[in-house]
Amino acid sequence: MLTKVKELLIGPPLPTHSILRRQLSNIQALAAFSPGALASIAYANQEIYLGLAVAGSAGLAFTFPMGLAIAGLMLVVALSYYQIIFQYPSGGGSYEVARKNLGEIPGLLAAAALIVDYLVNVAVSLTSGVAALASAFPALWPHRVAVALILLLVITLINLRGMQEAGSVVAAPVYAFLASFFCMLLYGLFRLISSGVQPLPAAAPPAVEPVTLFLILHTFAAGTTALTGVEVISNGVPAFRTPKARNAGKTLIVMAVLMGSLFLGSNGLTQYLGVAAGPQETILSALARHLFGNGVFYYFIQFATLGILTVAANTSFAGFPRLTSILAKDGFLQRQFTSLGDRLVFSNGILLLGGASAGLIVLFAGDTHALIPLFVVVAFLAFTLSQTAMIAHWWRNRSAGWWWKCGINGVGALVTGTTFIIVCISKFAEGAWLSVILIPPLVLFFQRISAHYQVVRRQLSLRGLPPSLKPAPPTRVVIPISGVHRGMIGAVAFAQSISSHVTAVYVELEPGSSERIKKDWTKWWPEIPLAVVPSPFRSMIRPLMKFLNETDEQQNDGQLATVVLPEFIPNHWWESLLHNQTAWLIKAALLYGNRFRNLERVVINVPFHLEG
Amino acid sequence: MLTKVKELLIGPPLPTHSILRRQLSNIQALAAFSPGALASIAYANQEIYLGLAVAGSAGLAFTFPMGLAIAGLMLVVALSYYQIIFQYPSGGGSYEVARKNLGEIPGLLAAAALIVDYLVNVAVSLTSGVAALASAFPALWPHRVAVALILLLVITLINLRGMQEAGSVVAAPVYAFLASFFCMLLYGLFRLISSGVQPLPAAAPPAVEPVTLFLILHTFAAGTTALTGVEVISNGVPAFRTPKARNAGKTLIVMAVLMGSLFLGSNGLTQYLGVAAGPQETILSALARHLFGNGVFYYFIQFATLGILTVAANTSFAGFPRLTSILAKDGFLQRQFTSLGDRLVFSNGILLLGGASAGLIVLFAGDTHALIPLFVVVAFLAFTLSQTAMIAHWWRNRSAGWWWKCGINGVGALVTGTTFIIVCISKFAEGAWLSVILIPPLVLFFQRISAHYQVVRRQLSLRGLPPSLKPAPPTRVVIPISGVHRGMIGAVAFAQSISSHVTAVYVELEPGSSERIKKDWTKWWPEIPLAVVPSPFRSMIRPLMKFLNETDEQQNDGQLATVVLPEFIPNHWWESLLHNQTAWLIKAALLYGNRFRNLERVVINVPFHLEG
Repeated sequence: MLTKVKELLIGPPLPTHSILRRQLSNIQALAAFSPGALASIAYANQEIYLGLAVAGSAGLAFTFPMGLAIAGLMLVVALSYYQIIFQYPSGGGSYEVARKNLGEIPGLLAAAALIVDYLVNVAVSLTSGVAALASAFPALWPHRVAVALILLLVITLINLRGMQEAGSVVAAPVYAFLASFFCMLLYGLFRLISSGVQPLPAAAPPAVEPVTLFLILHTFAAGTTALTGVEVISNGVPAFRTPKARNAGKTLIVMAVLMGSLFLGSNGLTQYLGVAAGPQETILSALARHLFGNGVFYYFIQFATLGILTVAANTSFAGFPRLTSILAKDGFLQRQFTSLGDRLVFSNGILLLGGASAGLIVLFAGDTHALIPLFVVVAFLAFTLSQTAMIAHWWRNRSAGWWWKCGINGVGALVTGTTFIIVCISKFAEGAWLSVILIPPLVLFFQRISAHYQVVRRQLSLRGLPPSLKPAPPTRVVIPISGVHRGMIGAVAFAQSISSHVTAVYVELEPGSSERIKKDWTKWWPEIPLAVVPSPFRSMIRPLMKFLNETDEQQNDGQLATVVLPEFIPNHWWESLLHNQTAWLIKAALLYGNRFRNLERVVINVPFHLEG
Repeated sequence: MLTKVKELLIGPPLPTHSILRRQLSNIQALAAFSPGALASIAYANQEIYLGLAVAGSAGLAFTFPMGLAIAGLMLVVALSYYQIIFQYPSGGGSYEVARKNLGEIPGLLAAAALIVDYLVNVAVSLTSGVAALASAFPALWPHRVAVALILLLVITLINLRGMQEAGSVVAAPVYAFLASFFCMLLYGLFRLISSGVQPLPAAAPPAVEPVTLFLILHTFAAGTTALTGVEVISNGVPAFRTPKARNAGKTLIVMAVLMGSLFLGSNGLTQYLGVAAGPQETILSALARHLFGNGVFYYFIQFATLGILTVAANTSFAGFPRLTSILAKDGFLQRQFTSLGDRLVFSNGILLLGGASAGLIVLFAGDTHALIPLFVVVAFLAFTLSQTAMIAHWWRNRSAGWWWKCGINGVGALVTGTTFIIVCISKFAEGAWLSVILIPPLVLFFQRISAHYQVVRRQLSLRGLPPSLKPAPPTRVVIPISGVHRGMIGAVAFAQSISSHVTAVYVELEPGSSERIKKDWTKWWPEIPLAVVPSPFRSMIRPLMKFLNETDEQQNDGQLATVVLPEFIPNHWWESLLHNQTAWLIKAALLYGNRFRNLERVVINVPFHLEG
């Protein structure tokens, strides 16, 4: 039944050989990987507006200059990633680049930053999208967390169905957003030309602070969130059709152009048309309302914004499971993340991402603004690490024209590094501190896992062992019994079929109860000796362990006896709650609890099926 | 470490032979079993006051007459239970009496009623006690649920430590309550004699309803909650010192006298001294304040009330685990309820009671008044069933003077049955309906469990089997392998030591991966054939099951092969999260999922311990 529910939700399993067909065309890939970058203009504009509005009109006069600075930064970073795609087409992105060129720790630092980045991206995109919706329908404002969680559930299910489906579902909102926003920007430009530049609204938020350098840097730090998502394509190269790198590179250029023009266009229009927003409205909603009033087109724009932000959350669902599968393949995460699910997607990564980002949304009560500082810190940490790594890469290879390519990444490293420092300082108290308690523990966690796997690999190696192995001596069997009943027949018969040295043992929980058991036992199995062990504290496990260890040592030169456990298998799972889980407890104690003389004790389950 | 925390909280384990000493003296038993009955005067007075106050002074004039009627009912019920103690000293109470005399279904109905009764008693007592405290300290009023839950936790822990400790801890508050309340009643009587009867307060709650028969019955229905707890001693006879029945009977008489005089005394005083209570105060708090002002003695009375109500909750902790252990012994509940814990108490019953009543307190938001209708319904259902059963009992035995004893129980059955019907009708909408969705499912649940145990017992019986049993044929072994590594050595050696027919099987999750495995395997174990099974849908379990079933059927005349599973045992439990739980999944599938031709397949675990 569980299988049926699963198939209804995510579809029937797909055979492994069909994996080759599941690659994305450039149009699909743009829809799958770019919405994060495109949609970030929504919250970036919002952050710039919130940051500058505290200084009133004087502050808002810096809107477009700020936008130009950020767009310049965007250009540098996009060019840097364009180079990365061709040098590292296997899709590890910042992690792979940093690990190969700077070493393991910087690589893991980048991986940790990316992991947090993907999580926060989901939370930021969804909460920002819901804010766009709630700007149009104020009644939804108190229910933003619930709406965001419902959207998250839908996205998670779509992604569990598989990449290709995700690609088709997300394409529509992305192109609807692009079309409607370009229409709005063109119409805005026409209005600007026809009516000229508007004064900044004096009725807008009153100035509570003067325009200081700190205010400008503080706003810039938050506004650079416009760049988040620009790296996603470089992590997703393997999902493109061949030639993968060329297709990914082309898609990146198209994305960067779209991103820059949308950002600068909307940013400029809000300033020069003199737009201001109320307390429960986003600045982009205010711009759309300013241009179109409360007409159909305004609502269309809001839904398109919600749409692209929802699929922006989806970019994490493309990138995160890939990253965790790469980390797992390299031994830094549980191996389970490498396994393809029924639908040929990394289901474990998708489920982890869905769960963790739901946690973030609840924790931050659905407030985009509160999430931004953490988002920017981890994004620019990853940017800086990968640009720095590329400098090392070019220096090491020094092929023709290397200094020119190195220069691009050098500028990239410089500007992203500087921005990283600005963000850390100016936004530390506002949430950037969270990265300090998230990133280092994650790095330690990766290292711990890696160390464990290495130890295991060494222990599992057969190297150095002689090819002819000593055969095991004939086995000796002990059967713990709870009574003399039909469930014992199979166990005793099996024990006798594999060993000529079989003993039964009864742990006497209730004083005196062994009398009848002994009588019954001798009647049925007179040839098998039955030992009785008292248990004054009514524990099953401890007296049994003591008995096993003592008889092994005293009577059998330390050779461990095999334990045969008769186990009831009820007809329905809930019925097993009606039986003492003694067999299970004994098994756990034998395998896990007790390491007698560092030898391994074999445990045999002989099931006895109950009917009805 | 877990063991240490447990010992710190509940004490070290006690050996079984010390159980004989753990019996209660009459003084201890009165403290352990009677507080429920004594303390019920707190909420009974409250219910009478709330019920009559809606009719203002005209209604409150019925306070003492109502008290007399309820005290009369109390007398009849106490006498009936006195007879039950001597006829059924094993402590099953209503359940045992109804089952023996009326049959299984009435018995289970009584058991279900008692189970709910015990749960609601905990919730009612604690919330009522906290209301007494919050009457004295109004700042606590909003935190009543939290305070009640903390008290519940403390009680649960004390009871897990064992009955004798519980007896000593609870004795102090019980006797403090008795002493302070009798002082108050005597002083009140003195005031009444010296100053005469006071008029009912006109400033008290204004009348919003006329005095109707329905109002009177409705209030009577709620007021009969004064009787709850009177049956507890009859369920706890085995906890008394020998002669058990005589001691229990004596204790019941003492308790009934105390109960009746406390109830009638406080009830009469509130009317004739003209006491009224505010919205966030109990009527007993108002009475004490009326007599003593806000002095030390007032606070002492409130703490004494809280104290006895807290230990009243404790009466459930004495009765409930005994009832569940009796039900379990009769096969109507999980066997786990019969096992004595480390401290010689029925720990599972105590834990269930603590958890379930915490749920009730949260569900009803700590409101005593809302819980009362359910409480009264289940209490009177149990009363009626046991009185009716006693009529059948006397009729069946007809010893000398039977008609006189039968008459007492007959009157008991009549008045409790009538009260039960009144409560059901007048309080149905106010919460009595809950009993309809609780009691019948509980009865069905008991029956379902009983049916399961009976089926199992029949299947386990060795009766009818020939004493000489067919020996099992030599076993054939299949080893599923995940690779060629050191973990296989022990498994292969063990398999070879018990069987001359060993096969390995490799499920190929990744196409092509079998090539190298095959080469390595033949190098190490050339004598053991290795079968490769393809898995196009990347599932481990299904192809393996198919392989096993097919080879069993086609090549081995249906004899099931034994499966040997090499199992990694990591050093720390969390490390097992880093390994695919394949061995565990295969084991579960072999034992539970697959019933090939209704035969049992033996599963052998050969552990391989990982270091570090």
